[in-house]
Amino acid sequence: MKTRDRILQTSLELFNLEGEPNVTTVDIANELDISPGNLYYHFKGKEDIIGDLYDRFHNELSDILSAPISQILKPDDAWFYLYIVFEETYKQRYFYRNLNDILQRYPAIEKRFRRLLAQKVTAAQAVARPLIERGVLALDEGQLGRLSEAVAMQVTFWLTYDLLRNNKAPEQLQIHQGVLQVMSLIAPHLTENYRSFYDDCCKLFDSLTADLI
Amino acid sequence: MKTRDRILQTSLELFNLEGEPNVTTVDIANELDISPGNLYYHFKGKEDIIGDLYDRFHNELSDILSAPISQILKPDDAWFYLYIVFEETYKQRYFYRNLNDILQRYPAIEKRFRRLLAQKVTAAQAVARPLIERGVLALDEGQLGRLSEAVAMQVTFWLTYDLLRNNKAPEQLQIHQGVLQVMSLIAPHLTENYRSFYDDCCKLFDSLTADLI
Repeated sequence: MKTRDRILQTSLELFNLEGEPNVTTVDIANELDISPGNLYYHFKGKEDIIGDLYDRFHNELSDILSAPISQILKPDDAWFYLYIVFEETYKQRYFYRNLNDILQRYPAIEKRFRRLLAQKVTAAQAVARPLIERGVLALDEGQLGRLSEAVAMQVTFWLTYDLLRNNKAPEQLQIHQGVLQVMSLIAPHLTENYRSFYDDCCKLFDSLTADLI
Repeated sequence: MKTRDRILQTSLELFNLEGEPNVTTVDIANELDISPGNLYYHFKGKEDIIGDLYDRFHNELSDILSAPISQILKPDDAWFYLYIVFEETYKQRYFYRNLNDILQRYPAIEKRFRRLLAQKVTAAQAVARPLIERGVLALDEGQLGRLSEAVAMQVTFWLTYDLLRNNKAPEQLQIHQGVLQVMSLIAPHLTENYRSFYDDCCKLFDSLTADLI
């Protein structure tokens, strides 16, 4: 692996483990056993590293959110699509756990993150619309708007909320819980013939997390 | 008003306006036209002021959350109960907009805030249980738990989310929108005979915000 990529990977690990404000570029260089000068050759300080980490995260999540999602009609397709969204967030948990602070310090990231949040709302609507047309979900425009905002909020603040609620579940279980929470927002809008969709989701949750609880 | 109370009031106004990290005790003393020494006589620095502001907020919101709420059966009772919860949050918006940062810097506040968040979940359950017993809401225990967490999340991250979504609505409208968002989480769990509850809420929202939009 190139030194540049090793620096990014180690920074992400240390940020997630120690919290971004508690990690210096010297800590990162020490962990990699390289000189601070060598690190500085690749990145002009921590701001530069965080900018690069955010760019990669933004592009990955943005790709996932804009992927063709018109085929989500089976519970396990929907489940794993959401799982990937939450997993991306979890990999970048230092960022979400310090959200206000990082956005205040890095205006360029704030601007892009606002667009990503808008994209989450749009993606939720894009998944729901064909389901409304097929009679799977019953939602008028106002309800669809509010549900999409609630889903985007859940996806965005899930980790901070879990931290405050002292949820110390292992990674995979925490992610499945996040997915179930989103499904629970959507479920009551299923029309009568499709209620089993949510029951199947609950069964899926139980089987996927049986080894983790 | 006593100097101590004037200091607290002015600090809260400046924190809400400028953001807490951008306000120093000297700024507060200047705004009040008192000497920094006089301020220091009342509070041993900004940490002390924030601690006191948080205590007052915590006690007020805690009182509201533990108030007798078994009588909430009419839409406007429910609406104004939630309105008061959101209004308390709005008054303390500097705190919510900088949540992770403040909690990391003040461990004593973090501990109390975790308890307040747990109290929000309990309050949501306490409101819902009698409604389930009367057949107004249809929820099993698992669904009740997840709905209560979703409501607590909405109440907690509403302001941060709105800020990121660039919602610049005037205060009252923003609070009513927050209330409608919570009602929209609860509404789909209403049993058939009580669906009009949500329609009445939407009408209430329209009439309450007609002058504000």
